[in-house]
Amino acid sequence: MLDAVHAELVHRGYLGLTVENVADRAGVHKTTVYRRWGTVDVLIADALDHTRETDWPVPDTGTIEGDLTAIATEIADTFIDPERRRVPVAIVVAALQSTRAMEAKQAFYAARHAEAAKVVTRAVERGELPPRTDPLELVRLTCAPLYYRIFISGEPVDRATAERAAEAALAAARAGLL
Amino acid sequence: MLDAVHAELVHRGYLGLTVENVADRAGVHKTTVYRRWGTVDVLIADALDHTRETDWPVPDTGTIEGDLTAIATEIADTFIDPERRRVPVAIVVAALQSTRAMEAKQAFYAARHAEAAKVVTRAVERGELPPRTDPLELVRLTCAPLYYRIFISGEPVDRATAERAAEAALAAARAGLL
Repeated sequence: MLDAVHAELVHRGYLGLTVENVADRAGVHKTTVYRRWGTVDVLIADALDHTRETDWPVPDTGTIEGDLTAIATEIADTFIDPERRRVPVAIVVAALQSTRAMEAKQAFYAARHAEAAKVVTRAVERGELPPRTDPLELVRLTCAPLYYRIFISGEPVDRATAERAAEAALAAARAGLL
Repeated sequence: MLDAVHAELVHRGYLGLTVENVADRAGVHKTTVYRRWGTVDVLIADALDHTRETDWPVPDTGTIEGDLTAIATEIADTFIDPERRRVPVAIVVAALQSTRAMEAKQAFYAARHAEAAKVVTRAVERGELPPRTDPLELVRLTCAPLYYRIFISGEPVDRATAERAAEAALAAARAGLL
């Protein structure tokens, strides 16, 4: 069922997501979906909880530049793809309209941040960054410029944007500001 | 009418915004609003176009730190206020669901970025930043961490978050990365 939510989002996007379409794709009756989930926002929240629990491969390129660039590039690649981008866009819309979806989104990003922070902890151990660097803050700073373009200013992202975001975040960390 | 949209958004937020409520507040018949605007997303877009054309006072504190911190603090203060934050939240939701609102949001942020970039141009002229610093990129980088917390990770912002965002962006600019 949660795979059907993901497939429908990639196929139709948030505005095209309906309980009926998800039920059809999953091969169950729509009343079953209504009884269990009620709204598409709850379906999205449950699908996100499920995704959160699946493994996300933490980059390990050997340098903090390489790892942060890999994280930023993965975000850029998602938003460059006209189908894949529909999933995070739907999550943001749902979270602004449903408390349940908002909580799922917070838990999802908290979990991903904690995983991604491992690249910073390793870099501190290797002596690449100041010992007191806040790992979560460096992760946030790497991701933020990409999401800002997508959701706020409405400007495109590409791999150069991703590399610049990683470099800029790293400059702040190296200056001992994080 | 556009003031009524703003007042209704502050009062009820996006989910509570209806053509009827806007019409009531503006003292006109709802069919007039439906005929002219059709949906709340178009009302939001028109209100945003109107806001874009109003003056925004560019900070001029004498230093680039002061100016960028003022810009970041203004954003943080908006999102700290439970009523004022409803306006940018509604704009983001509307833009994800309506092409007209998306275009209005892009034009709004492009106009505000261009205004805010003046603080960077002045700082370059004063010799505070490398001559080839991209003014728009420094503005984006200052704003991005705040919007990332609000719309993506769902974490709170405060004045300390704003100051750190400005400092981090500035570190990247001083390192000659922008």
